[in-house]
Amino acid sequence: MVHRAPIKALAFDVFGTVVDWRSGIARDAAPILARLDRGDIDPHRFADGWRKRYQPALEEVRSGRRPFVILDTLHREALEDLLRHHGVDPAAVDEDTLTDLTHAWHRLDPWPDSVEGLTRLKTRYPIVTLSNGNIALMLEMARHGGLPWDAILGAEVSRVYKPLAESYLATARMLAIDPAELCLVAAHHSDLAAARAAGLQTAYVARPLEYGGRAAPDADAAQDWDFSADTLTQLATELCS
Amino acid sequence: MVHRAPIKALAFDVFGTVVDWRSGIARDAAPILARLDRGDIDPHRFADGWRKRYQPALEEVRSGRRPFVILDTLHREALEDLLRHHGVDPAAVDEDTLTDLTHAWHRLDPWPDSVEGLTRLKTRYPIVTLSNGNIALMLEMARHGGLPWDAILGAEVSRVYKPLAESYLATARMLAIDPAELCLVAAHHSDLAAARAAGLQTAYVARPLEYGGRAAPDADAAQDWDFSADTLTQLATELCS
Repeated sequence: MVHRAPIKALAFDVFGTVVDWRSGIARDAAPILARLDRGDIDPHRFADGWRKRYQPALEEVRSGRRPFVILDTLHREALEDLLRHHGVDPAAVDEDTLTDLTHAWHRLDPWPDSVEGLTRLKTRYPIVTLSNGNIALMLEMARHGGLPWDAILGAEVSRVYKPLAESYLATARMLAIDPAELCLVAAHHSDLAAARAAGLQTAYVARPLEYGGRAAPDADAAQDWDFSADTLTQLATELCS
Repeated sequence: MVHRAPIKALAFDVFGTVVDWRSGIARDAAPILARLDRGDIDPHRFADGWRKRYQPALEEVRSGRRPFVILDTLHREALEDLLRHHGVDPAAVDEDTLTDLTHAWHRLDPWPDSVEGLTRLKTRYPIVTLSNGNIALMLEMARHGGLPWDAILGAEVSRVYKPLAESYLATARMLAIDPAELCLVAAHHSDLAAARAAGLQTAYVARPLEYGGRAAPDADAAQDWDFSADTLTQLATELCS
C-alpha cells in the first residue's frame, strides 16, 4: 500500500482539463474568418493551429531566451503568425478584431461536468488554478463559466511556465503546504509527469474530446497516476467520500 | 460634474475593511494568554499592540532595507516582539502555539454586512483583494468567512506592500485595465489617498468599530472620496443601481 500525504489543496490545469478550448476558439473564429472572406478555413483546424503554436512560444520564455510575458501576449503573437500562415496579413485586420479574437481564450466554456465537479471538490479542498493562462484571462473565464476558484495562481503569479518544476513548487509554497500535499488535476500526462517529478500528487481526468476525438500529443506518456477519473464529478466522488 | 471612467473592477482592502481583526485576534489570543498565566493582559489591547507593530515591519520591506517577505512572517516576528514587550519569552512558548496564534489572522470574521455586500457587488464587478496579506492567509480567511473573491491579488502577487504606488498599479495591470478603471474599497483614508494618487477611483467604507470605537490613526486624512458608504451592502446599492 502506497503511503500518501493528506491532500491539502487541489491545483488545476485549465485549458483542456476544465474548459473546452477547441470548440470555443472555433466558435469565435468562424464568424471572423467568414468576415475576412476566408470561410474556406476550417475553424476547428484554425483552433488546432493556434494551439500548436503554444508550446514553442512558451519554450522561448521557459528557456530564458525571452523575459516572462503573459499568455495573452503569446496568444496574440501566435494568432498573427497563424493568420500569415493562412495568407492573411494581420496588419490588414483591424485591431479590435485581433484583440477580440485573442480574447476568445477568455470566453471558453467549461466541460459539462466542470462547474458541478469543482463546486463539490471545493467543499472539501481549496481549489486553485495552476495554468499557464494569465490572471485577467483566468478571471474573465471564471466569471464567464462560473468556475468557483478559491484563488487564481499559475504562471503570471509565479512568473514561471509549466512544466518547469518551479511552477508546481511555487504554487505549493504560496499555499503554505508541502508539494506532496498538493494534487495537480490535469487531462495531460506530460503536465502530470512534471508535477509528479516535482513531488506533487496527481489526478488524471480523461478529456477524449479535447482534440476533437483524436489522440492527445502526449497520449504515450501515461503513467499510473494517484487518481484517475472520467469527469470532475467522478473525481469529486472519489476524493470527497 | 466630475467625469469618471467606468469602473471595471473593485479591489478591496481587507483587514478592517472586510474583516474585524481586533475582535478576532482578541478572541483567539485570550485562551492562549490565560494558558500562559497572563490573563492580566487585556486581549483587545494585545490585538492593538500586534497591529501597531504592523506598519514599522512593512516599512522595512517598502524601504528596500529588507527583501520581500510575506505577512505571515512579519506577523510572527511581531508576535514574538509583542510577547517580549509583555515579559513573555517567546522561546518558552511551544512552536505550535506560536504558529496557531499567528494564524489567528487567517481566521478573522467578516463584518456582518461583508458577505452579502461582496456577493451583490460581484454580480456586477470582478472583486479582488488588494491587501498586504499573503495568499495562504487570504485564501484561508475567504474559506473561513465565505468571502467570494474572484481573485486574490495584493502584496504577495505584486511583491510590493501598500501604500507604495506600484501596489495599486500592478493590480490594475494584472487585471488588464487602466488604473482609472479600478476602484479601491477601503476603510482607511491613508490607503485611499495613495490609491487616488496612483490614479485609482476610491470608495470609503466607514468601520467605526475597527479600533473598538476609538478614532483610526489616519482619521485626519479624510478626503472627498468618489464613493462613500456605511456598509458594503450600502456600497452595493450605490454601485449596482
